[in-house]
Amino acid sequence: MRKRVALPVLASDALSSIAYAPDEILLTLALAGVPATALSPVVGLAVVVVMVVVTLSYRQTVHAYPSGGGDYEVVTRNLGAGAGLVVAAAILLDYLLTVAVSVSSATTYVTSVLAPLQAYRVPLAVGLIAVLATVALAGRASSGRLLAVVGQLFMVSIGLLAVVGAVRELALGGLPAAQSAGLEVVPVPAHDEALATIGGAFLVLRAFSSGAVALTGVETITTAVPTFRRPRAANAALTLVMLGAIASILLMSVLWLARVTDVRVVADPAQQLRVSGAPVGENYHQDPVLHQVAQAVLGGEVLPAVVAVLTAAILLIAAMTVFHRFPRLAGQLAKDELLPRHLWMRGNRVSVANGIIALAVGSAVIVWVAQADVVRLIALYLVGVFISFTLSQAGMVRHWTTVLHVEQDRKARRAARSSRRINALGLVLTSLVLVIALMTKLTRGAWVSLLVLAVGVALMALTRMHYADVRRRLAVPDDARLAALPARVHALVHVARLDQPTVRAIAYARATRPSTLECVAVELDTAESARLRAQWRAAGVPVPLTFLHAPDGDMLHPLLEHVAAVRRSSPREVVVVYLPEYVVRHPWQRILHNASARRLQARLRQVPGVVVSSVPFQLATADVAHAKDHDA
Amino acid sequence: MRKRVALPVLASDALSSIAYAPDEILLTLALAGVPATALSPVVGLAVVVVMVVVTLSYRQTVHAYPSGGGDYEVVTRNLGAGAGLVVAAAILLDYLLTVAVSVSSATTYVTSVLAPLQAYRVPLAVGLIAVLATVALAGRASSGRLLAVVGQLFMVSIGLLAVVGAVRELALGGLPAAQSAGLEVVPVPAHDEALATIGGAFLVLRAFSSGAVALTGVETITTAVPTFRRPRAANAALTLVMLGAIASILLMSVLWLARVTDVRVVADPAQQLRVSGAPVGENYHQDPVLHQVAQAVLGGEVLPAVVAVLTAAILLIAAMTVFHRFPRLAGQLAKDELLPRHLWMRGNRVSVANGIIALAVGSAVIVWVAQADVVRLIALYLVGVFISFTLSQAGMVRHWTTVLHVEQDRKARRAARSSRRINALGLVLTSLVLVIALMTKLTRGAWVSLLVLAVGVALMALTRMHYADVRRRLAVPDDARLAALPARVHALVHVARLDQPTVRAIAYARATRPSTLECVAVELDTAESARLRAQWRAAGVPVPLTFLHAPDGDMLHPLLEHVAAVRRSSPREVVVVYLPEYVVRHPWQRILHNASARRLQARLRQVPGVVVSSVPFQLATADVAHAKDHDA
Repeated sequence: MRKRVALPVLASDALSSIAYAPDEILLTLALAGVPATALSPVVGLAVVVVMVVVTLSYRQTVHAYPSGGGDYEVVTRNLGAGAGLVVAAAILLDYLLTVAVSVSSATTYVTSVLAPLQAYRVPLAVGLIAVLATVALAGRASSGRLLAVVGQLFMVSIGLLAVVGAVRELALGGLPAAQSAGLEVVPVPAHDEALATIGGAFLVLRAFSSGAVALTGVETITTAVPTFRRPRAANAALTLVMLGAIASILLMSVLWLARVTDVRVVADPAQQLRVSGAPVGENYHQDPVLHQVAQAVLGGEVLPAVVAVLTAAILLIAAMTVFHRFPRLAGQLAKDELLPRHLWMRGNRVSVANGIIALAVGSAVIVWVAQADVVRLIALYLVGVFISFTLSQAGMVRHWTTVLHVEQDRKARRAARSSRRINALGLVLTSLVLVIALMTKLTRGAWVSLLVLAVGVALMALTRMHYADVRRRLAVPDDARLAALPARVHALVHVARLDQPTVRAIAYARATRPSTLECVAVELDTAESARLRAQWRAAGVPVPLTFLHAPDGDMLHPLLEHVAAVRRSSPREVVVVYLPEYVVRHPWQRILHNASARRLQARLRQVPGVVVSSVPFQLATADVAHAKDHDA
Repeated sequence: MRKRVALPVLASDALSSIAYAPDEILLTLALAGVPATALSPVVGLAVVVVMVVVTLSYRQTVHAYPSGGGDYEVVTRNLGAGAGLVVAAAILLDYLLTVAVSVSSATTYVTSVLAPLQAYRVPLAVGLIAVLATVALAGRASSGRLLAVVGQLFMVSIGLLAVVGAVRELALGGLPAAQSAGLEVVPVPAHDEALATIGGAFLVLRAFSSGAVALTGVETITTAVPTFRRPRAANAALTLVMLGAIASILLMSVLWLARVTDVRVVADPAQQLRVSGAPVGENYHQDPVLHQVAQAVLGGEVLPAVVAVLTAAILLIAAMTVFHRFPRLAGQLAKDELLPRHLWMRGNRVSVANGIIALAVGSAVIVWVAQADVVRLIALYLVGVFISFTLSQAGMVRHWTTVLHVEQDRKARRAARSSRRINALGLVLTSLVLVIALMTKLTRGAWVSLLVLAVGVALMALTRMHYADVRRRLAVPDDARLAALPARVHALVHVARLDQPTVRAIAYARATRPSTLECVAVELDTAESARLRAQWRAAGVPVPLTFLHAPDGDMLHPLLEHVAAVRRSSPREVVVVYLPEYVVRHPWQRILHNASARRLQARLRQVPGVVVSSVPFQLATADVAHAKDHDA
């Protein structure tokens, strides 16, 4: 993949956070009133510092683990399976929330342009998830080219916005005020003390941790290294650095423009915003910061709408990439027996489709419960993201320490030491953000994330234990007599009526030359049985037919009883039960056939020493076979 | 069964209609105002005439068809499979609606006693259905004795009510007025013309057809003849006549008491009832006729409440009996291939449970859609009931005609002719009611019943056609070479890993001494494959292991390809695919195992000439087997 194509698609996840990260910083600060929002560039700068460090840290990861295993691989290899399990759960939750946050934010931009849709935000968001899932289900060959163009247009448009804004502000006499500039902001009672108090400092920390949501998606590129052109690691690392730089510049630009145009964004508009002393009311629709900035800088209706549409598009592309990455991650985790093992079948359509549907349903439920409220969702989002960031950095520090234990070459040792310093700095900063996020968001919904993570970790640990337990119990003992064979085979054909499938089952059973062969029918109705007996004799079937008595009209018990009796009389014999099965053409016809065969099979599986052989007869080919017989 | 026990339980369906039939007559007549309700005894008498004739007609059926096949058997035998199909659909719908009507009516009585529950009528009705279904699922041994006692108490209580009412009215100076006697009844605009017009006559006919709902359930006894004491038919016939007599007396008594106590019951209380000129309002709760009569006749609170509770109980018993009869009917229809064939397993718990759940869900949906409104439900109910009544009577007429064709004995001929006259009268009267019901109820919901019946008939006809088609295509041709065997058996064991289930599958495959035996694994991961190959060699498995290449990481295609290649190279060989299967103890563990085996099996069923043999390995027994091996 070329960088020009790779960057916009892979980076959509990281870049799209510009749609909601500035809002997070501003509305948190605005809890203490307008003066506090003057701190936004400082908070933004702190976020940018973390962004730069994390970007450089992940640059190390790209070089050290170019296989695309991402955080999960780094943590599992360096910190062990337990930490790997926690990261696995965190990433799965991260995927669900990336879709939920991106789609909810996209909905905000759509409704900023199309105001009448504002009452339908939740169904709109759920509908968008359904559309994304349908697209993901329909085609593997999603047109990366088109997505790349949209991504490039988005970057260019935000870049132009910044340039136009800067020129107008600095050279052409100043920008006009934003639409919300005239509103009064009422501080929330608990936060109206001076910013200099401890509460104020706490609020700034909270704004900082909220703004750190701008970092989400940076790690995506580490999972995509194998898709880059050679030299893969170098190209991926360069892309990553470009991405960090662009994201930082965009974030600072938007925050600066919001400040000079006096954008007012608050957590609760109905309570906190007033027009000439009167509350704005429940019907006030608060446009996101980026949209308000675009309106002030570009003026008119059309250009801001174009920016909003591109923003919604990049958010949806970010969600879309998750739909492609999710089945791959599920496969990786299934291979390590953290998820049902059969999900580890890359390229298998059923597995992929199940993954896509699970992701869509999960994220739709989250969107619905959180009522597509981006602020609420981000509180859930941050903790999981920074748990995997922190563990990943810790893993990298351990990685370099291990390298230093074995590496002899002086130059390589120097490089490793320098890399370790970078990752250590990353570890310090990401764990700092994690602690702040836990402190400031725990009661605001982050506890839900922790609970979900704990349950996820428990389920995956149980799954792994179950597989390990089964493997241990089923291991072939060293002293096993592999050559020992059952002495005899007792074959048994279940007969419901005399038709071609039954005849075929009997022929196939006879072809295996069993020691004993019997046909067994259950007598549910004397008249029916008499008819079957007569047919049997007339057709000259070369195997005798035994009727089992069914005292209570249930056919399962007599058959199971009979099999049990055979097993008792010769325990070293294998019993093979042949079941003629009807394979019909249409799914709706299936409920009309094989119900008793299915039930019998389910019960026979519980009996040791019994093999259940289904002999399918394809109804579609019956006519052809008929015709052939007559031709012959 | 003794008559004393049989009557209250079997007859609960027929007797319980006293809970809603009087209301139907009165509220229909009240559409034209209070003077019209004076006609209620006349209308009641007309219903009683039909009741007597239908009872006598069914007495003929009991003697002629003592096997308990009911209307379905009578119609199928005499009028052919097509008419039988219509009756089958009508009876299935009748069962659903009997539960819906009985439970909804029971809810009315419960809320008459416990007024605070009036706001929860629909959830209460749905909850009662759930309780009935649970009881039906729990036990076959439902205490018939207790139900009989409740039924007897109900009959005695209504009988006492009639006697006390008659004595008070005729000997002790007259009954007090009912609680609703003082209300003014406003005729509905369309019906306020004089009763003498055509519209008035039409209304009387409508009241008559509505009152005919009192007949529902009379046919129940014809399906229960085999459960009576000997002489079965005679005892059943006597029970039937007693039932008809009691139901007629109860209906007339209640109608007469309602008239002398001036009970006011209307279709739409909020519109039609006024207190001193003002509407009674939306919150007025209209008690059913029987409850109002009980209040006026018995006085106080306690005794009327006892009657209401007994009435609710008999209604629930009526619904309960349907839960017991429904699986039996489903079995009968399944035997005739109108429903999936496997339902014809009397006594099979799964079939019975499925039937009970289907009935509960279906009737709950009906109750919910109709908002537990008895009047609305009865409009749906009548048409289906009278379609089966009419067809059944027509069938009986044909039956006697056939008898007269062959019978020589003079006395028997006379008896048959007399019976035919009774059934012919029944046919005339029931078809009259059917026509009136269609005329008066078609736009009031009966069209829904007709639509459901049509869909039911179509589905059952399609099912029967499908089975007939399959039977024809699968019939063993007369010239079939039943002794012809496939030349060779190619056995193939699917290997995912080397463990005890795989070892067992190989041993069992070898025990059948196939012409060719190979073990096949799909290579999804080079490292895994190398490990498996090494294990295979180390364990000394006596069968070579073939690896199939999986270019797209999907394991199904290579296996299917391989089987297809084997089939192509020797088309007269049977291919037997052995699949080791893990049988785990807990259902939740199932999702962790066998997914690929299941998928493979589903795909292999489509390939002609392939037998799929699952070799189950019970994990629960693995430890035991281990221990044994070590003991030995």
